Formats: sequence, structure tokens, C-alpha cells
Amino acid sequence: MRILGVDPGLTRCGLGVVDAAGARRVSLVHVEAATSPSTDPTPARIARLGAALDRVLDEHRPDCVALERVFAQSNVSTVMGTAQISGVVMLAAERRGLPVVLYTPSEVKAAVTGDGRAAKAQVGFMVTRILGLAEAPRPADAADALAIAIAHAWRGGAAPAGSAATTAAQRRWAEAERAARRRG
Amino acid sequence: MRILGVDPGLTRCGLGVVDAAGARRVSLVHVEAATSPSTDPTPARIARLGAALDRVLDEHRPDCVALERVFAQSNVSTVMGTAQISGVVMLAAERRGLPVVLYTPSEVKAAVTGDGRAAKAQVGFMVTRILGLAEAPRPADAADALAIAIAHAWRGGAAPAGSAATTAAQRRWAEAERAARRRG
Repeated sequence: MRILGVDPGLTRCGLGVVDAAGARRVSLVHVEAATSPSTDPTPARIARLGAALDRVLDEHRPDCVALERVFAQSNVSTVMGTAQISGVVMLAAERRGLPVVLYTPSEVKAAVTGDGRAAKAQVGFMVTRILGLAEAPRPADAADALAIAIAHAWRGGAAPAGSAATTAAQRRWAEAERAARRRG
Repeated sequence: MRILGVDPGLTRCGLGVVDAAGARRVSLVHVEAATSPSTDPTPARIARLGAALDRVLDEHRPDCVALERVFAQSNVSTVMGTAQISGVVMLAAERRGLPVVLYTPSEVKAAVTGDGRAAKAQVGFMVTRILGLAEAPRPADAADALAIAIAHAWRGGAAPAGSAATTAAQRRWAEAERAARRRG
């Protein structure tokens, strides 16, 4: 299964595509951080990021979209733009018939590092290791988009139908995730 | 000039189209409140409202879009959905080459009632009078969408090029608007 992870933002929007074969094998397909200049009018910025999103969807044809859930409690100065881009991502996915799954930042951190409060650098480090990359994807938004895609792959989104069996490592991950959610 | 006013919202999205001939003559073209069931997944709700928006844009071909500006300080439970729809509206307008103008709720209230803190009912009353309707458009989101379109028409968006002359009534409106902004 091919997953597009999106770290939504108006200044930088992370777009990361991974292929997931089974529950624990994921590989990098594509990653970028689409940008829009803060000096442009908001509609132009949204259209520019929407065009980058369409291009990734057309070129890499993911089976589903994993999107970071935006909270109104977050940084007020950026949250509105983030929500606007989220709406555009949901619309594009829905119009292509792709399922959209939302993950909170702490769910993503818990999935890839085992700690729902992990630092950004730790997320980048783990994404680099998990995907077997030579170096961490930059900027952080690109790494975060991949982390969201990996989180979806590992949450069972990429498990073959009927494969209920879990490994000991998977059970430990699941326990770490639950613990992180309780703390978060 | 034909103006589409949008009162964005995930449960109800007001879409009001007016024709503006000169700065003070506005007439109703179309009004509706597009809705989406709160029980549906958010991407499906956004796509449903996006389809209603596209239909209005295709059928009524406005020259510009006036959109209510969303504030992060507003009701937290609804602001994210409102921002998501705003993003979709901006994208649709930009892709059609239509300018988008944003107005705060108090700017709209000041424009149509002379009071930036006017009650919803007062806005509905004035929209009904200004457009010469038999009764107030319902629900309130429909009336609000028309108020946003009227505000844009009256803010000079619909003034013919070179028509700098203002009537005594227009000057009084402008003064009321400035006073309302000072109070707001």
C-alpha cells in the first residue's frame, strides 16, 4: 500500500510518500516540502500548495492520505493557515476517492519513536533509520510528513487483510503508543 | 459587478450572490445555505460543500468572492471547520482567477447596519431591506453571506471606475463604518 503523509502548513507543507509492504516494512517513494511566500496573498499561497499536492497525487498515486490533525489550541498565528491547507488536502483526497486518516502529533511521535512527546530531531532521526536513508529529510516538515505516513503504515493501515498476528516487537510498539497516549 | 459572498462553515455554509450596479444599487441573484451532516467524516463534508460552491460558481459566474475572515479566537469547536472551508473557497476562487476579499464580521455588520456589533437579527433585517426582499433569507448563514457580498459592493468594490463622487447618504454610511471600527 502506498501512503501519502501530509504535514499541513501555509508556509511549508510536508508531503511524504511511502510504500508499506506488511506492517513493518516501509520504504521511501518521494518527499518534499512545498512552500509559499508569506508575502503572497493567502488565496495564491493556498493555490500554490494545492498545485504541489495535486502533482504529488498525480505522479505517485497513493492509496490513502494520512494527515496531521490540527488543533485550535496550537499556535494561533499559524493554526488558521494550517486548517485551511488541511481542508484543501481533504477535498483533494475525497475527490480522488482516497481515504483520509487523521493523526495527532503525539500519536505520530509515539508511533515512530515510542514517545508521544519526542523532540522534532528525534522524529527525524527515527524516520531516517526506519526508511534506511543516508541522512534526515530536510526541512523538518518533510521528515514529519514521512513520520505521519509511517505512523499510518504501522497503525495497521498497511497490514495485509486477515493478518491479525503481531510480532513481539509490534506488541511492544503498541504498548509504548498506548503509554504515550496516556501521558499525552 | 457580480459578487459571491461566503459565510464559511462546515455545518452550514452561506452562499449569497448579488449584482452591484454602482456603489449603492445591489440586487439578489441567488442565495442558499449549503449543509453537511455532522455525522459524516470531515473529508466527505468538505467535498459536499465544495461541490455546492462549485455549482454556484459555475451557474452564477461571479466576478469576485467576498469571504468572512476567520479568527482563531472564535468558538474553538467550530473554528477549525470554518477555516478548512475558507481554504477550499480560496482555492476554488484562485483557480478560477477570481479575486478574493476578506471581511471581518464587524466590518460586515458595520457596512450593512452602521454598527459593528449589531445583532444577527439586525443584519438579517437590513439585508432584507437593502435587497428589497419580502422576507429575511433563512437560515442566518444565508443572510450573512448576502451581508458579506453587500459589504464588498459598498466598500467600493462595485463602484464604477472613476466614480469618486459620493452621495450624502454614502458619506454618512462611511462615517458610521469608521465609528463602528473605532468602537470595535
